[in-house]
Amino acid sequence: MNSITTNYAPRDAAAREIFVELARRPIFDPHSHIDPHRPAARCLDEILGYHYYTELAHSAGMPADRVGPDSTPSSRVRAVAEYLPALENTAQYRWLLHIAQTFFGFEHNSINAANIGELEARADHEADGAAWDAAVWSRSKLDAVFLTNEFDDPLSGWDTSKYIPCLRVDDLVLKLHLPATVERLRAATGLDVGDFNGLRAALAAVFERFKVRGARACAISLPPDFVPSPAEPRRVVTPIRRALRGLPVRPDEVDDLRRTAFWTIAELCSDHKLPFDLMIGPIRGVYPAGVAGGRDLFDRRVSLHDYAPLFNHFADVAFPISTLTPDAAAELTAYAWIFPNVLPFGHWWYSNIPAFIAHDLRARLQALPATKLLGYYSDAYKLEFILPKFTMYRAILAESLAEECVRGRGWSTPRALELAQLVLWDNPRRLFGFDQSK
Amino acid sequence: MNSITTNYAPRDAAAREIFVELARRPIFDPHSHIDPHRPAARCLDEILGYHYYTELAHSAGMPADRVGPDSTPSSRVRAVAEYLPALENTAQYRWLLHIAQTFFGFEHNSINAANIGELEARADHEADGAAWDAAVWSRSKLDAVFLTNEFDDPLSGWDTSKYIPCLRVDDLVLKLHLPATVERLRAATGLDVGDFNGLRAALAAVFERFKVRGARACAISLPPDFVPSPAEPRRVVTPIRRALRGLPVRPDEVDDLRRTAFWTIAELCSDHKLPFDLMIGPIRGVYPAGVAGGRDLFDRRVSLHDYAPLFNHFADVAFPISTLTPDAAAELTAYAWIFPNVLPFGHWWYSNIPAFIAHDLRARLQALPATKLLGYYSDAYKLEFILPKFTMYRAILAESLAEECVRGRGWSTPRALELAQLVLWDNPRRLFGFDQSK
Amino acid sequence: MNSITTNYAPRDAAAREIFVELARRPIFDPHSHIDPHRPAARCLDEILGYHYYTELAHSAGMPADRVGPDSTPSSRVRAVAEYLPALENTAQYRWLLHIAQTFFGFEHNSINAANIGELEARADHEADGAAWDAAVWSRSKLDAVFLTNEFDDPLSGWDTSKYIPCLRVDDLVLKLHLPATVERLRAATGLDVGDFNGLRAALAAVFERFKVRGARACAISLPPDFVPSPAEPRRVVTPIRRALRGLPVRPDEVDDLRRTAFWTIAELCSDHKLPFDLMIGPIRGVYPAGVAGGRDLFDRRVSLHDYAPLFNHFADVAFPISTLTPDAAAELTAYAWIFPNVLPFGHWWYSNIPAFIAHDLRARLQALPATKLLGYYSDAYKLEFILPKFTMYRAILAESLAEECVRGRGWSTPRALELAQLVLWDNPRRLFGFDQSK
Repeated sequence: MNSITTNYAPRDAAAREIFVELARRPIFDPHSHIDPHRPAARCLDEILGYHYYTELAHSAGMPADRVGPDSTPSSRVRAVAEYLPALENTAQYRWLLHIAQTFFGFEHNSINAANIGELEARADHEADGAAWDAAVWSRSKLDAVFLTNEFDDPLSGWDTSKYIPCLRVDDLVLKLHLPATVERLRAATGLDVGDFNGLRAALAAVFERFKVRGARACAISLPPDFVPSPAEPRRVVTPIRRALRGLPVRPDEVDDLRRTAFWTIAELCSDHKLPFDLMIGPIRGVYPAGVAGGRDLFDRRVSLHDYAPLFNHFADVAFPISTLTPDAAAELTAYAWIFPNVLPFGHWWYSNIPAFIAHDLRARLQALPATKLLGYYSDAYKLEFILPKFTMYRAILAESLAEECVRGRGWSTPRALELAQLVLWDNPRRLFGFDQSK
Repeated sequence: MNSITTNYAPRDAAAREIFVELARRPIFDPHSHIDPHRPAARCLDEILGYHYYTELAHSAGMPADRVGPDSTPSSRVRAVAEYLPALENTAQYRWLLHIAQTFFGFEHNSINAANIGELEARADHEADGAAWDAAVWSRSKLDAVFLTNEFDDPLSGWDTSKYIPCLRVDDLVLKLHLPATVERLRAATGLDVGDFNGLRAALAAVFERFKVRGARACAISLPPDFVPSPAEPRRVVTPIRRALRGLPVRPDEVDDLRRTAFWTIAELCSDHKLPFDLMIGPIRGVYPAGVAGGRDLFDRRVSLHDYAPLFNHFADVAFPISTLTPDAAAELTAYAWIFPNVLPFGHWWYSNIPAFIAHDLRARLQALPATKLLGYYSDAYKLEFILPKFTMYRAILAESLAEECVRGRGWSTPRALELAQLVLWDNPRRLFGFDQSK
Repeated sequence: MNSITTNYAPRDAAAREIFVELARRPIFDPHSHIDPHRPAARCLDEILGYHYYTELAHSAGMPADRVGPDSTPSSRVRAVAEYLPALENTAQYRWLLHIAQTFFGFEHNSINAANIGELEARADHEADGAAWDAAVWSRSKLDAVFLTNEFDDPLSGWDTSKYIPCLRVDDLVLKLHLPATVERLRAATGLDVGDFNGLRAALAAVFERFKVRGARACAISLPPDFVPSPAEPRRVVTPIRRALRGLPVRPDEVDDLRRTAFWTIAELCSDHKLPFDLMIGPIRGVYPAGVAGGRDLFDRRVSLHDYAPLFNHFADVAFPISTLTPDAAAELTAYAWIFPNVLPFGHWWYSNIPAFIAHDLRARLQALPATKLLGYYSDAYKLEFILPKFTMYRAILAESLAEECVRGRGWSTPRALELAQLVLWDNPRRLFGFDQSK
């Protein structure tokens, strides 16, 4: 352990033993937004530009334009640094300090306007290029990192055994009514997409290309008012035609289009045996004046009951589910308890806070088959964030297992570690098609 | 304490002292689904056939038909046993191990395919018949166990001072529009049930019979979209006539019928001074392909505000309330805080998980009159489950009282035990009409 | 520390050290219902008449009329005292015992029918008058206490540097359709209020008067079905005219009136740089047969998403937000994380229970800028309640900081205390316009 993992290490002896062992193991990260062409941050702006910092700094008073595209990287970094002292209590700040100390050799215990210059210099890896990517990968003991690829991503130019392609279908569902989406789909598939059958054929071509390139999952984030229902090809004849010709589509037609595209994609997940990650909850642009990436929120009045028809119809599709509003977590536990194809997937975004993780994890550990627990993913945009986020989660997992299994049930720590290994490694690897033998 | 209660016993000294004392006391169980003609399990299939095991095994990958009615008891047991290793982390597994060790003399620390034969042999009490029922009763220190009787249950053939009748009215409310229900009501009462007045008279006859036989409560489980409203006899004239004649009834008429039947039953609870247990939340058959008993879930968007007219109108009826979705628990605390006739009733089904119980219990202990806390019920189908479920709850209660009262307020452990006695014994006994003097 | 604060003091050394230091500091209370003309209780009836006691006693079985206006103070006190033994487990009882021991020199460890006479005698400060107010103020180390003033409060006759005026606009929004409200507005402003422009002018006059008198906030409590939307002066022409003339107004018109009045008031908050406290959730009179002050509850199906248009439009208005249903707390954390002008404000009413506070506070500490945390307010009607409520909160804050910051991150206790000082002092003082330099 270095000083940071020491700092994260639980005080309780059993929890500490579990944590220390977990910290030695490689990381399998089943969901991220890493750019495989430029996975690690080359400069501090790519670290502090993460929306968690810009939005918290903005929330604390920083004008949004100070980190806008018209600013220089260095001025953006300094803008955020001014507000970091107000964020020292947050989980996000803790990730940042972990990164600074682990990857950049930063030895101070806080980051602020006085020492931001030093950190900026230390974080400058522009000249190192891919060597720096490799260094972060190795230092973090990464094994595999899932990407989130747009449907027209060429999927070439990187090692797909390390950076695993994952088909993101947000645009194909939520923006299918926009001419730009149809154009992109035509360009990506070379197909005409003239009607529903053409659309289905184009979507199938997308899936085939992704499968060939090693994709292991399909993923989408859905707003709280989205309610899946079976595709109704006849009902969407007109709106599809209008969308394809770039004509305006009525709101109810947009809704029909969305539901039909979504259901069709679920059929393709079934055909191609791809898990379909559902990230349920965000409403985009709730706060339009916010910083980039920091404008989305949710309406907490959402229920997985809306998804029951989907789970029933696609019994052969695995649905790793993340829900955004923390108060919906207990419902997810109940649905994963009953539906074999519903799996609780990590701790997402506004729910990715230790207080919520600890509560949700405890319930999942007490109520769900060990083989269905998909512990954690980083959701990171830059490699550096994977280690601190997983370290936070590993500490909570270690404490939960020590309390629940070691003290609560008299398990040995090796037995508790076997459960941790399922949660962090075996389950996600098996579910996403690695180690099929297990 | 035997080894199991030792295993459950909290580590903290005060909590342990409270727990050990509670483990010595008899159990009063105010809600179960025990069959009084065959209360204990005669074979392992009756233990592992409990939906908690079949649904979790199914959730973990077991095909539903392996525990279907076409399988033999022994093959069903082996089917579930295959998946038990995946469930060792769950609260439900802990009950099972508790049962195996306490009632069946099973000495292994896990149950799996290798030793399921031994457990099956040990659990075979077919030959012992009623003697085994008595042995489990005595070993569990049971005092009284509430049943859940259909309205046409003959209510005879058992000791109603031990197995307490409770009138379940689900069918009378939710299935009144079905000819079968009306036929059963006619058969049970010998009354004609020709119109609303006939219906009311028949319902009254049901209540009278139950009261004479010692019923102590009326109970119903209600879906999240049910909204109580006053009976409207005129409005249901036509739908009742149609239902009585076996003719189809429109959905809105079904809804009118339900609300009128429910309100009428609440009036009868008032007339007969019976508490009306409301179990709010389940939607039946959300997952139709699930195992028997494992198909129901909920929509979390439910509020007790819908029940305010009921609570207001029937100020003299006690409403012990269980809510299904864990995130509704805090609202129940608030309603029980204000309405004298609303009482939080145990921790039900998807909420009956230690993480949720601990959180909900703490809030109830901090916010509600001690005399209104109705601690726990087993909801069990077989006697063997009462002890492990109550043991789980007693451990959480002991820890909560140690933290909240002993450490937090400087109470002595005997004083904390007095509160535990209220919660587990005095309150439910007084509310359900035992120990009227208290 | 006296015996009570000793009793509240956490056992953990770091938490205790933080708590003891916090207990030495003055209290800044940014929301209360204190009557500045009679701030402290002159008799025990003014303590036990607090709705927390009458409603809990009533919930435990006390008939409401025993504490009604037709009873004498002494009989009301005795009525509640009969039921106090049933409430010894509650957080509210703990406040009461704290008051009895700290302010009234009561030395028993419980309050009941046997010693209520002694407590009543000790609590009699009728003869002391303002000297008693000063004694409680000083003993509690109060610095400033916010009031909640009706819009037609003359705002004179007290020291507004100690008792800070705050404009309560509930009637101006929720009861604007009632002739009495319009009459009061005319009387308070001397303006004619003939139409929308007249209304706006009258509201502006109210704001101006409050600002001149030192008001530091505007506040309102809103029902869960209220959805803010921009003022539509044209749409309310008719309903305003009808309301002004005392004619009946249709429900949809009432709704239009409310939304227009609310939005207009938000504009005035912007004009006058006043924070606008939103207390979201209560429904008045859910339990009409309850005791005074104990009739309100909520519908938990509420979301801050409804308020996004307000937060977006009034980017320059600070909105300290309290939500009533405990399960909505996590959503508030997310909204305060993104919107610079949304601040989590204390722990309100049904959420003001240690179990909920601890959970919510932990999430806020982990997810929000330290400079946005508005720790606590008393919501008290009598000065005596401020100290015990703040003591409860300080103990939870101390425990949270010890766990989260001292043990979790290796902070020193002085550093943790700096954060506590922000939460309890610097932030609310800065936000409400004190210490502008900070």
